[in-house]
Order: sequence, then C-alpha cells, then structure tokens
Amino acid sequence: MAIKVGVIGARGRVGSAVVDGVNAAEDLELVAEVDQDDSLELLTENGAEVIVDFTTPGSVMDNLEFCINHGIHAVVGTTGFDDERYGQVREWCEEKPSVGVLIAPNFAISAVLTMAFARQAAPFFESAEVVEYHHPHKLDAPSGTAVKTAQGIAEARRDAGMDAIPDATEQALEGSRGTDVDGVKVHAVRMTGMVAHEEVIFGTQDQSLTIRQDSYGRTSFVPGVLTGVRQVADRPGLTIGLDSYLGL
Amino acid sequence: MAIKVGVIGARGRVGSAVVDGVNAAEDLELVAEVDQDDSLELLTENGAEVIVDFTTPGSVMDNLEFCINHGIHAVVGTTGFDDERYGQVREWCEEKPSVGVLIAPNFAISAVLTMAFARQAAPFFESAEVVEYHHPHKLDAPSGTAVKTAQGIAEARRDAGMDAIPDATEQALEGSRGTDVDGVKVHAVRMTGMVAHEEVIFGTQDQSLTIRQDSYGRTSFVPGVLTGVRQVADRPGLTIGLDSYLGL
Amino acid sequence: MAIKVGVIGARGRVGSAVVDGVNAAEDLELVAEVDQDDSLELLTENGAEVIVDFTTPGSVMDNLEFCINHGIHAVVGTTGFDDERYGQVREWCEEKPSVGVLIAPNFAISAVLTMAFARQAAPFFESAEVVEYHHPHKLDAPSGTAVKTAQGIAEARRDAGMDAIPDATEQALEGSRGTDVDGVKVHAVRMTGMVAHEEVIFGTQDQSLTIRQDSYGRTSFVPGVLTGVRQVADRPGLTIGLDSYLGL
Amino acid sequence: MAIKVGVIGARGRVGSAVVDGVNAAEDLELVAEVDQDDSLELLTENGAEVIVDFTTPGSVMDNLEFCINHGIHAVVGTTGFDDERYGQVREWCEEKPSVGVLIAPNFAISAVLTMAFARQAAPFFESAEVVEYHHPHKLDAPSGTAVKTAQGIAEARRDAGMDAIPDATEQALEGSRGTDVDGVKVHAVRMTGMVAHEEVIFGTQDQSLTIRQDSYGRTSFVPGVLTGVRQVADRPGLTIGLDSYLGL
Repeated sequence: MAIKVGVIGARGRVGSAVVDGVNAAEDLELVAEVDQDDSLELLTENGAEVIVDFTTPGSVMDNLEFCINHGIHAVVGTTGFDDERYGQVREWCEEKPSVGVLIAPNFAISAVLTMAFARQAAPFFESAEVVEYHHPHKLDAPSGTAVKTAQGIAEARRDAGMDAIPDATEQALEGSRGTDVDGVKVHAVRMTGMVAHEEVIFGTQDQSLTIRQDSYGRTSFVPGVLTGVRQVADRPGLTIGLDSYLGL
Repeated sequence: MAIKVGVIGARGRVGSAVVDGVNAAEDLELVAEVDQDDSLELLTENGAEVIVDFTTPGSVMDNLEFCINHGIHAVVGTTGFDDERYGQVREWCEEKPSVGVLIAPNFAISAVLTMAFARQAAPFFESAEVVEYHHPHKLDAPSGTAVKTAQGIAEARRDAGMDAIPDATEQALEGSRGTDVDGVKVHAVRMTGMVAHEEVIFGTQDQSLTIRQDSYGRTSFVPGVLTGVRQVADRPGLTIGLDSYLGL
Repeated sequence: MAIKVGVIGARGRVGSAVVDGVNAAEDLELVAEVDQDDSLELLTENGAEVIVDFTTPGSVMDNLEFCINHGIHAVVGTTGFDDERYGQVREWCEEKPSVGVLIAPNFAISAVLTMAFARQAAPFFESAEVVEYHHPHKLDAPSGTAVKTAQGIAEARRDAGMDAIPDATEQALEGSRGTDVDGVKVHAVRMTGMVAHEEVIFGTQDQSLTIRQDSYGRTSFVPGVLTGVRQVADRPGLTIGLDSYLGL
Repeated sequence: MAIKVGVIGARGRVGSAVVDGVNAAEDLELVAEVDQDDSLELLTENGAEVIVDFTTPGSVMDNLEFCINHGIHAVVGTTGFDDERYGQVREWCEEKPSVGVLIAPNFAISAVLTMAFARQAAPFFESAEVVEYHHPHKLDAPSGTAVKTAQGIAEARRDAGMDAIPDATEQALEGSRGTDVDGVKVHAVRMTGMVAHEEVIFGTQDQSLTIRQDSYGRTSFVPGVLTGVRQVADRPGLTIGLDSYLGL
C-alpha cells in the first residue's frame, strides 16, 4: 500500500518538484499540498503519514511541532537548524517515540555518496585533490560541498596518521595549485553551460581513483527526498543527514 | 620499529616490484628474498615477521605450511586457491591462532574500492552501466573485473527489490548497447596506449555518479600488498580478499 | 549597429529558445516573430535582415522563397531537405546573388566541432572508438551523431591508407565490444539523468586523446544559430552545414 | 620501399625509444645508430635518408650541418634553438633546397592536437579553462604546455573580439579559481600515479566541449617523431613545429 505523503511548501520551486516526484512514484500517494495561508490541518484531514518540508526557517519549527504531535513522520530540507533547534526537535520526539524525523542539509544522493566514498578511500592513497565545476553565476569559490569534501579527506588522513600529500612544486604561478583546505588542494572551475559537478581524485603508485558527481538540473534533490520518505517511518527519533539512510 | 618482511618469488616480475615497494617504505624492512632453489629457512634465519608470496599454485601451499608453522604472517597473491585449499590453510591457522593469512585475488586498491563503492551506490540509482578500457592486446572482453563489478551491482539491486534498468531502445545496431551481465550493460573499449581502466556510471533524476579507476602501469598492486603487510599481524586467521583491510 | 532578426516558427519549442537567444544578444535585435497564421509580410514591414526558420518541411520552402526574393538572409534548421530542395534554393539564390542561406542539420557547436576534430585527429592514432551517452527514453542506439562521427573517422583512416584498428580479442561476451561502424567500434550508454553526450577516444603509443561533448539542456543549438545569424550576410549563396561558419 | 633512418643520440633514453619505434615500423629501416664518440660518417656509409636527432644543444648544429650538406633530411627534438640558430639552419637549407628539416619542441601528437583544437574552438564558447594533471615530482606549475594552451585560447578570443570570460565570483578562497593566463584560468593538479594529462574545457549555452590529452608513459613522443620521419622528405626547407605535419 502506498505511503500517504503531504508536502509543505508545495508551491515553491523545490516543493513543486517534490510534488512531481511523489506523483510519479508508484509506492507513494500525494494526499496534501500545503503552502502559505493553508492550514496544517489539511495534513491530518487527509491522513498524511509522512510530510516533506522545504519551507523557511521562520515556519519550519511550527510545522514540525504540529506533525510530531500528530504522529506524522517528517523529511526536512529547510535550512537554519542549529543545536538549539535540534535539541527542541529531539524533545518533541521523546514525547512521540514512534515518530521519525530526518533533517538533511543536502539531499543530492550523488553528492552525499561522493563525500562518503571520499572519506572511505582517503587513507589508501598518497594524493588527493578536489576539482569542482559550476555555472559562472556562482558567487563563492570553491563550493561548500567541495570544501566539506576536502575537510572529510583531511580528517580521514589525520585519523590514519598519514604524511602530507607529496608536492615538489618549486615554481608556481599564483593560484595554479588551487586553494589549500586542511592540506587538500581544491580547484574551482566556472563554465557557462555547466550546472554543478564535483570530481575527487585519489592517486597512488601506478593508479588513480576518481569519484565524480554531476548535477544536470535543479531537481537532483528529489530522489534523496523520496528515499527519506520511504525510510523515515522505520527510523524513529531525529536523524541528521542522509548518510545512514544510504547505508553509509 | 619496522616490520621485517620476506618476499617469496622475489625475482619474478611481481615479486621484484614488491621488493622495491618494501625497500621504499620506511616502516618496512626487507630481511629475506626467496626464490626457486632458495631454502625457506632464509625466512626464519633472518627473522621475517611477514612474508609476501607471489609464486605458483605448485609451491604456495608448502610455503604457507612452513610460514604458519613458524609463526610468520602471510600476504598471498598467488592464484589457484579453491575451497579445499582454503580449508587446509584454515586448519593450519587453527594450530597457530596468532598467525594472520591474507589471500587476495586482486591487490589493486583502486579496483577493489571501485567494486565496493559500486555495490554501495547501486540501490540509489535507476540506471547503472560499466565501461572498461584496456590495451588492444587483451584477449577477453569485457575484463573479469568489469563482469564482477556488474554482478555486484545486479546483486545489490536485487537485494533492494529494484525494477529493471530503464531502456526504451527499439532500434539498435547489434552490439551498440553492450553485453548484458545480470541486467547491467557492460561495454569494453580497446585502445592502444591505454593500460587498464574501468568506469562505473550511475544515474538518477538530474544527476549521475561516476566511479573511475585508472591503472597507469604494471605495479598498481604494490600499495595493496603493503597495506596487507602492515595489517596482517592484527588480523589472525585466514582472510580472503582485501575488502576488510580497506575498511569495507 | 544590431542585426535585425526575424524568427519564423517563433512560438514553437525551438523557435522560442531562438527568440530568447536573440533577445539576450546585444548585437542582435528581434524585429519580428512569425508563426502559423502570421503573414510573412511582418518580416519586410519590420525590416528583418536575417531570418531564422525552425518550422516544418511543409512550410519552409515558401518561407525561403519569400525571404530570398526580398533580400533577407536565412538561417534554417528545419528538416526535410534533399538534393531537389537544395537545387531549388540554389536557383532562387542565383537570382539574388547577395543573399546568404545557411541550412544545417545540427546547430550544436560542440557536436559539430567534435565531429570535425575527430576527422582531423583520426590519421594520427592507431585506435579510435566512440562512446555516446543519452537518457533512457531514446529509441535508437547508437545516436545518429555517433554513427556519423565513426563514419568520418573511418573515412579519414581510409584516405590516409591506415591498417585496421588493432584488437586481439578472442573471447568476447556478445555485444561487449560495441557495434562496428565501418571498422570503428561505437558504444551506446543509456542513463537516467543524462541528456546527450558523446566521447571520441583516440589512442596511440603511450597516449590518448579524448574529445567529449556534453549537452546539458534542450537549447544547446542556440549559440550555433546565433553564429549563423551573425555571419550569413557575409556568405552569399547556399551553405549546407555549420562547418565553414566555424572555420573548419 | 622502407625509408632508411639514422638515429643520432641513439643510446640516450629518448633516442633508444626512437630506435625501438623505427625497428617496430614496417615502412622504416634503421641503418645507423650514432652516439657520442661515433662518427657521423656512419650515416652516409649506411645510406641514411632521414636522421632523428635527440642530442644536446652543444652537438646538434654540427649534426645538422653535416646532414644537410650530405642531402640527409632531419627530424630534430633537441632543445636550445633560437632565432639565430633557425637562421643558420635556413642558410644551410638554401644551399641544399631539396633537404627537409623539422625542428619541433613537442612531438607528442595528442598534446599538439589539443593545443590546435583549443585555438580552433575558442571563438565559439563563452567560457574556457585549462586543468593539467602531473605526477607530484614536477617542479613547476602549471606545465609549460598548459600555459601555451591558455595563451593560444586567449589569442583566438582576442582575434575574434570576444568579451572577457564570465565569472561572478565574489568570495573566493585564495587560489581556488586557478591562475590567470591572459584572462584564461589554469589549474594544476599533482597526483601520485599520474604521468602527464591536460584537459581543456569550453562551455556555452547548455553545452560543453572537453579536449583531453593523456600521456601514460615516457615514449609518447615516438609516434610524432615517426610522422616526421615519414613526411620530412616531402617538405623541403626548415619547418618549425609539428603542426603542418598534422594537417593543422
């Protein structure tokens, strides 16, 4: 039987992609679309079992309190969570121990897997660098994901007691060797036509391993959200980040 | 203090690359090079703590019996092992419970990780295909590694209860869609100048994940062997395959 | 001063992307949008110097006759041209020798360059193969572009008197080595999330050259059309294909 | 009938790879191997029609004077040529107008084609960047080839009157956006296991074009040298650079 899903923020750019994704999935049934001015009662009236929330920091806590209190599981991509908010959500969950809540900063499965695989591979390769590619309208360089990937690699290397990455460069044009994130070089390419892409390269004797993630459009978060929707009822309490949902 | 290493088959092509690798590693000390006509006593006389065996199916069992009996750990890349041989090694290990033996068919870390990551990623992507690239002197197509990778993906998809990979192809030139390995398409490219390369591509809504392994030369197994040498004393009994040594 | 452009078929999917492209270009001015039921007089009334035609085989010839007769240059992506139609267009052009007409089957610059570079590179590499990647809804395999690319490589090799591509394969799973297009192997990958991508790989001693074309969306033809619009007035008579416009 | 080839500097690392290449080619016959202490008379005595010179700046001019005077064509990879030396070679060639001399700084065909294709493609893409990958023992960054490639792109853009490459970056970690070579960003990756690789990426609306060159070993110059040997007799006078030999 299909899981009954409500989408909060259903008419936003992200929310409407989630609506399309739920509608396209045979094992999911869209029972409520809630947006500003709509009452959350729509969720209970229509029997939503799981909600997806891509709204705003200003409204998400009210939404979560309502859902948890009514025994509705929640998959949340809204930003603005800090330790205080996580603590509040955990408190609500303790009152309703059967309810699952997943809050994740990144639902792009390929990006989450890339970061996880990078951490796993890091201890076994002398060298590691990250190259990210984005459209030229992006304001920051490198991307937050690339920085986080490099930090994960650096941490895994430290934990394994590895030496610094070898680099005999003596004469370099300024910037050619990228930026240094905890000892891992990161390069940012800006390219008209591209969307969002990341390549993590590892090398050791006579071999390299490359993990590459390509986003071709704006709805790459949808499969991760649906993965969350399908599993959240089996994972009571608060989960932060998609990793455990991906078996990582 | 450096681990004392003996290499059996030290003058073969593979063995001599292992010798070079041990000599280059600061935490390892080469204490014995054994080849045909040399006595295994060289190992005990020189205090070898770990041996590496890349010899022949005809000699490897005698080597292992000797080493295990003398409390020497063993890292083995020699071929020809079957259940009977594994059983025999386990018996010897039971007599000497502190001794570790690692027998692995593939010591190329990047290839082993590629296969493991492919199995992990498989349940989260609608599509998956494998493309391998080798020099044109290779006799078989696709490579055994590519077939094994595809089988791992297929098994992970079955375990997750996934549908068949979508493919609307109605008109195809014969062979253009590759060969079908348990429902996963595999393509083999043969290219002068290349060595051995494998690309696993996963796709789902608006994104893809690519895991690529490149071997640039003939000594890509060395880092995997040294990883084995460093860990084998801490892993008593028989271990088959490098996976657990890589934290997989 | 900006070139005055009219778009015929302006409300179709392709035409409206051309309209957007012309509007975004500082050196072009959109003066007329013509679609079904509109009179072609809109073009002359508004002083169009160049038209773009993405319509249907049923209407394109009337459009061309009108434009050429009125001294308006034309950039045409409509399909259905054969030798008879080309002959007719040439006749009209002879009457108006200052008018330029560009008719091209493919306006994706990256694809046209890939094919041209592949022909140029082909004589200098022992090996060549083509791998194309498309979304899984595509009905044919391999893509027409990939077949044409392979044919161009094969022809360049024949012209250079080259031997067959080396391939020692003796045992192959059926289909693993791709389809054979005039002696050049072509592989087709189908992958959810991908759009349209082609990779041409050349190899010779200790090196390879890869030319890769990625289409990330449905408007990749626009830059080629605008290149045509900018140059067509300087290239009187009929030109078939974008190649000479790209300096090839 | 096979072309009779002499190799000067035959026992050097590069020269001996040329010797192997000539021996492996059915249309070429190795008739003389000359090294230090050998007399150049070996070339005339054995009827060399073409020589290959990979020696030193100190000896190459004497070698060329001898060969040109004796009507022997020359393919030269030795470094240290400047305008004065080119002028001297041209003078000698004027005395022997049937003799061809090719002097090239780079015989790696894939690298020469990559640079040429990059210049050809540059005018048709809004964005262009270069990423090069080398082993970590390299002392300079980026590679000379990458700098030259970027300069070629920059020149082609200037000739076409193009605007600056779009880049909205406002907040960048230092070095993340690479080094700026005449307005084209260049990134250098250093990776154990890799040899020498270069990727040129172009992007415009909804598409990208990537030209990638991989060197897998130290003899990647050999096919370019043999191409020179085969064509030099048909190209009298001094030619600088392999480009025209590749039809560029």
